[in-house]
Amino acid sequence: MSCIVQKFGGTSVADVERIRNVARHALRARAAGHDVVLVVSAMAGETNRLLGLVRAVSPTPSEREQDVVLATGEQVAVGLVALAVQAEGGEATSFLGHQIRIVTDAVHGKARIQHIDAGALDQALRAGRVAVVAGFQGTDETGNITTLGRGGSDTTAVALAAALHADACEIYTDVLGVYTADPNVCPAARKLDRISYEEMLELASLGAKVLQIRSVEFAMKYRVPLWVKSSFTEDPGTLVCREDAAMEQVVVSGIAQDRNEARLSLREVPDRPGVAARIFGALADRHIVVDIIVQTPPRGGRSDVSFTVTKADFAAARQVMAEVAAELGIAAVESDDRIAKVSIVGLGMRNHAGVAAKMFQVLAAEGVNIQMISTSEIKVSCVVDEKCTELAVRSLHSAFGLDASASTEVRA
Amino acid sequence: MSCIVQKFGGTSVADVERIRNVARHALRARAAGHDVVLVVSAMAGETNRLLGLVRAVSPTPSEREQDVVLATGEQVAVGLVALAVQAEGGEATSFLGHQIRIVTDAVHGKARIQHIDAGALDQALRAGRVAVVAGFQGTDETGNITTLGRGGSDTTAVALAAALHADACEIYTDVLGVYTADPNVCPAARKLDRISYEEMLELASLGAKVLQIRSVEFAMKYRVPLWVKSSFTEDPGTLVCREDAAMEQVVVSGIAQDRNEARLSLREVPDRPGVAARIFGALADRHIVVDIIVQTPPRGGRSDVSFTVTKADFAAARQVMAEVAAELGIAAVESDDRIAKVSIVGLGMRNHAGVAAKMFQVLAAEGVNIQMISTSEIKVSCVVDEKCTELAVRSLHSAFGLDASASTEVRA
Repeated sequence: MSCIVQKFGGTSVADVERIRNVARHALRARAAGHDVVLVVSAMAGETNRLLGLVRAVSPTPSEREQDVVLATGEQVAVGLVALAVQAEGGEATSFLGHQIRIVTDAVHGKARIQHIDAGALDQALRAGRVAVVAGFQGTDETGNITTLGRGGSDTTAVALAAALHADACEIYTDVLGVYTADPNVCPAARKLDRISYEEMLELASLGAKVLQIRSVEFAMKYRVPLWVKSSFTEDPGTLVCREDAAMEQVVVSGIAQDRNEARLSLREVPDRPGVAARIFGALADRHIVVDIIVQTPPRGGRSDVSFTVTKADFAAARQVMAEVAAELGIAAVESDDRIAKVSIVGLGMRNHAGVAAKMFQVLAAEGVNIQMISTSEIKVSCVVDEKCTELAVRSLHSAFGLDASASTEVRA
Repeated sequence: MSCIVQKFGGTSVADVERIRNVARHALRARAAGHDVVLVVSAMAGETNRLLGLVRAVSPTPSEREQDVVLATGEQVAVGLVALAVQAEGGEATSFLGHQIRIVTDAVHGKARIQHIDAGALDQALRAGRVAVVAGFQGTDETGNITTLGRGGSDTTAVALAAALHADACEIYTDVLGVYTADPNVCPAARKLDRISYEEMLELASLGAKVLQIRSVEFAMKYRVPLWVKSSFTEDPGTLVCREDAAMEQVVVSGIAQDRNEARLSLREVPDRPGVAARIFGALADRHIVVDIIVQTPPRGGRSDVSFTVTKADFAAARQVMAEVAAELGIAAVESDDRIAKVSIVGLGMRNHAGVAAKMFQVLAAEGVNIQMISTSEIKVSCVVDEKCTELAVRSLHSAFGLDASASTEVRA
């Protein structure tokens, strides 16, 4: 008997009727002979409602107590989904993070899963029950409730699939699968049938919101076949899996944009050992994740350092940098939160020269100014003015042959 | 340093402003030199909202999953109260049932506390923190979430006070304390300064809703001084404590009424050994609590058996009795859910004759028909037609000298 983990997000459990749909969906999979683990998020809107209560009580809430409040969203959802499975004639048991020992580190609000004790789940599955697991939450070593951050339920699902050696992990969303670009930004975007873990990881990192990055990392590490599917259609969706020869032939698989970053630039930073460590160490101490970092070559003993952080961390990062600037004698801290990062991703880049150059040419031809550049083996990212986002994505999508109307793949 | 447990109900944490009041209240007690443990209920209306969701998903919900959903109400409240204490400049940590091992039996929805591991609480208190504990919930031996039933937060508070050897347990409510009768029913009712555990236990059992019965049992067993106070005034409230000589002088301390019961009468029950055991065993198997039981002396090998259950258990009790009646050859099962139980309670009854007779005379003089009678050492209860409730309570309150205008205690 095969085992499937199915994850349903907040919109899929937004009301009683949708909760019943999830229950019926799970029971169809059971009827088809699968062991079924459901991972569910809080009902749509619930996490924001709870966050509103927290903020009303305290503008600077303790992260431990905020997690205590937020974790209730998933707890309500698993209870209701288990009840719905029972109401549809099936058997089900709900499980919370502390009940199956989803042990995380103690970084509240951004915790990372370290260990799962799948024993209780195994027992429920062997008894023919649907196991309904609360996504997004765990406990640290001492039993404090932790949450994994937005989208954390994807990670819960993949981690459970890995722990249970499941045959597949299916992530149900309100879109058909993974697209070549965000259809809201680029009307010519196409759904992909397959994509490699590596490409998906880059796309997720670069702002494609269909999967949480950490969940893709887990899936890649433990070789979990990961499906992105729609809750509302029978479309087979997109399979995220190991790369194969055919994938290497495609130079650019997708375009991503991310409006959720902000840029800080430190002017005339003293060029001596330990300065960069001090700057980024101060940010790391506050658990602020830095994305792109660019440093100019030093001139006159000074260089400029620019980096991007998420908009949520922008205010905190500015405060930290003001302190660091005073300490290190940095001339000025500039900041800009009206930027966007536009990226092209593809396994084929590894074997094709000139992909980055082509990207810069396309943007130049459209008059889009590039503020920062970052590259990896399979992606190129450019930071541009936020208002150029759509123009940049659409022109790159077309230039790299991804438009739905394109009949053949275009190579660089 | 003394230790105080303060319990705040749903109306005391109904919104952000009231939550701040609770936090300030706790910090005043800390400033006065006390270790403070707060026990809080779900925000007013929240438990009913959650119950509504449960019922919408399943008309016959599994009690395990219902408890998973309901327990979130208190979880949200403790997180918010802890945040409010912090926002007011104090230090606080929230604790859930599974974090301080409030171990209960496995009777979901009506669980009884068996053990509390106060270690983690002690540690927080020693560090100068306000401990904010979720009322109403625990876990069974295997980690399933349980709830204690309506009013269960009172029991959590008293059980914690016992486990911590606290100097006092203060129950904050929306009334000034314990009254001689329900002021909504009897305008002449007076607040009591002190009342014995035994009397309070009878009053709570008899329908006075100010404290949950189980909490009074706990307080009596562990000699916890129990204060009933108002969240909204500085009135000292009512102290529930061990009886003293003065208390014995008062024949009737209070009048209680309970409209929440229903009566079942079994006609012509065969008079043979084991029949009563079968009838009440069947009810116990379904966790239906029976209150008053009356059996007529057998005539012609048959007797009538009547008993009362709560209205919530009425439908289930009727169903069980229909089965039992068929099995035992009982002639008929009659039922009536439009009844009320009116009771007089007082330690002084132990030493005064004729108290019950006086009660029956007072009711007869008002034309109130008595359907069932039940007595104990310190109370007399009569089941009457529901529509006579106010008349019965007011006339007894006056006849036993409890009216606010009465200048002297009247003895029977």
